[in-house]
Amino acid sequence: MRRVAVSGIGLTPISEHWNKSLLDLAVEASCKAIDDSGSFNIDTLYVANVGSSFIQRQQNLGAMISDALGIKGINSLSIEASSASGGFAFHEAVCAIASGVSDSVLVIGVEKMSDALPEEVASTLAMSEDQEYVAYTGITNFGLNALIHRYYMERYGATASDIAMFAVRCHEHAEGCTHAQYPFKISVDRVLTSPMESDPIHTLECSGIGDGAAAVLLKPFESKKREVEVLATATSTDVFHLTQRRDITTLNAVSSASEKAFRIAGISRNEINLLELHDDSTIMGVLSLEDLGFAEKGKGFTLVVNGATSKNGELPTNTFGGLKARGNPIGATGIYQISELVMQLRGEADKCQVENARIGLAENLGGVGSSCSITILRGI
Amino acid sequence: MRRVAVSGIGLTPISEHWNKSLLDLAVEASCKAIDDSGSFNIDTLYVANVGSSFIQRQQNLGAMISDALGIKGINSLSIEASSASGGFAFHEAVCAIASGVSDSVLVIGVEKMSDALPEEVASTLAMSEDQEYVAYTGITNFGLNALIHRYYMERYGATASDIAMFAVRCHEHAEGCTHAQYPFKISVDRVLTSPMESDPIHTLECSGIGDGAAAVLLKPFESKKREVEVLATATSTDVFHLTQRRDITTLNAVSSASEKAFRIAGISRNEINLLELHDDSTIMGVLSLEDLGFAEKGKGFTLVVNGATSKNGELPTNTFGGLKARGNPIGATGIYQISELVMQLRGEADKCQVENARIGLAENLGGVGSSCSITILRGI
Repeated sequence: MRRVAVSGIGLTPISEHWNKSLLDLAVEASCKAIDDSGSFNIDTLYVANVGSSFIQRQQNLGAMISDALGIKGINSLSIEASSASGGFAFHEAVCAIASGVSDSVLVIGVEKMSDALPEEVASTLAMSEDQEYVAYTGITNFGLNALIHRYYMERYGATASDIAMFAVRCHEHAEGCTHAQYPFKISVDRVLTSPMESDPIHTLECSGIGDGAAAVLLKPFESKKREVEVLATATSTDVFHLTQRRDITTLNAVSSASEKAFRIAGISRNEINLLELHDDSTIMGVLSLEDLGFAEKGKGFTLVVNGATSKNGELPTNTFGGLKARGNPIGATGIYQISELVMQLRGEADKCQVENARIGLAENLGGVGSSCSITILRGI
Repeated sequence: MRRVAVSGIGLTPISEHWNKSLLDLAVEASCKAIDDSGSFNIDTLYVANVGSSFIQRQQNLGAMISDALGIKGINSLSIEASSASGGFAFHEAVCAIASGVSDSVLVIGVEKMSDALPEEVASTLAMSEDQEYVAYTGITNFGLNALIHRYYMERYGATASDIAMFAVRCHEHAEGCTHAQYPFKISVDRVLTSPMESDPIHTLECSGIGDGAAAVLLKPFESKKREVEVLATATSTDVFHLTQRRDITTLNAVSSASEKAFRIAGISRNEINLLELHDDSTIMGVLSLEDLGFAEKGKGFTLVVNGATSKNGELPTNTFGGLKARGNPIGATGIYQISELVMQLRGEADKCQVENARIGLAENLGGVGSSCSITILRGI
């Protein structure tokens, strides 16, 4: 297998882009990634998207976006694995380059959620659960997260403010992030006095609704300046129904995908300098710290409370604000996470820069942890 | 690269499956493919589907189907490239095996269209065109095909009955096909007196609405009995808007994907013994014969009229009835085509068996030819 590098990244700010279409956003991010790479010789294009068929009534994004970029005759398709679509598409792309099937792959994550009413967005997100047995009841993804959140607090003795701290840390990191949707600080009090989204989850513990596109260009690794090497990608799935899992506070897809990824990368957890976690609500961020192997089960929140996950802590986490503060344009989120690792590992993260960032890990979740993708990158 | 084999196939009949869910159909086809292969050791699962997020409001099919099959911890995701989703998913799977990334891949095409009203199906199909500039006008895919159909007749002197013959041949071949939706003969008169779907395309020149699932299990080629070798897969895209193409009677994605595929396979067109073409309406079948290189531009219909594409002709085409008579469960269609080639090349096609079938080609189209996948298989 060949070594694989991220040779270019491109991001749009995450916002409510009323004056741009889904295609506009995808093209903007792609052109930035191509500029950043200095190369426009793409043989494969993967599009990660979740909502376009329901929200924009648009499919065939592979053909549409490649044509808009002026590229014809290539392998171009969409990949969907719920909100882990970005990570899964990146995994396909890495395999294509590593194996020699492709020499230059553009992966675009794009989502335009503000074209829909909030209840339509909730409906779109609920499609990642079984429509016939779960989603039809009207429970939302945050509702399912709330079951985990409450059980976790009762079982492991975490308080509401312990878990709310995950959101507070994210907002601390987002200050100064130019692509973040909510680049400002919030207090624990502000979180705990915000309305209940789904008891015991407060609105300010949830990622919001935003539009955005992120693109990365992958090539064989050549040890060139500003390249970031892909040490490993791995994906996994768990029991689909939350209620059928042996323990709802354990994300098996996260532990199995990360085991695979660490084995492929040939590194240990203490070599990881920073994390980008999938905190669609605070509790998922806390569980992720545990199931990735950075904390014992039931102790993940202590890393957040004691400052280990802060910018100057041992394990800086969600260094541009994570899903909570940077934003969560569903299908694009995994590509934002990977792009942020690249910015950190290149030393180009400006006000968000973490010191001594050499190896980073991104975790992208689909459903309530039913799908998981892990990416490990190393700067040169 | 390793040689790749189809080691098992599984099909459900194409019909209106009122008593089965999308998941039921996917599981039924998968279990048949696993039984047929004699192996249940799957490390990757690709799902080809177009309509589920709009019709069933279900996404995350990768995690859902792998869990229903009792498989956890694997790479499992959905692929969409309009109605070419099946062929594009197969291409990903072949690359994964060839490159050594995977050792056993299950590809499932599944679609349940009868859960929707006919106008919702038309809406779903129109999502493969640009919603902002084309689909919003209300034109359907058959409406776009009709522009090509009329221009082709006027430019190349083909009559309505010349082109209608494509549907007649398909129905001849579907007689005795146990999975076909419409396994009976029709006459040219019957086609030409059926209502206009979109002038000059008659209803009986169009593929219908059906439910179905098809699955194939891929493994490294081992020269075992009943294996069918994948000689090549290739995909391509064309200018997205039909009206912006230099010549609307030429499917550039078909010519470019087939050029790639023949080069990879290292064979010439006269070594192909049978074809499975994407005749979502008759004209697309005719154009495909030309753009694949089996007829000169403007002469494709003559192969149909003179019997060359018939079961006992030189180039048997759509040997189980094609999209017109076997049926067209959108995301599953490409996998039906490939499974049918496998049945022919194994000599297991029963009443549909073509003599001396050794090498076959399947062509799967998305949009109005904006995406194309080509597969070339060889029996042993």
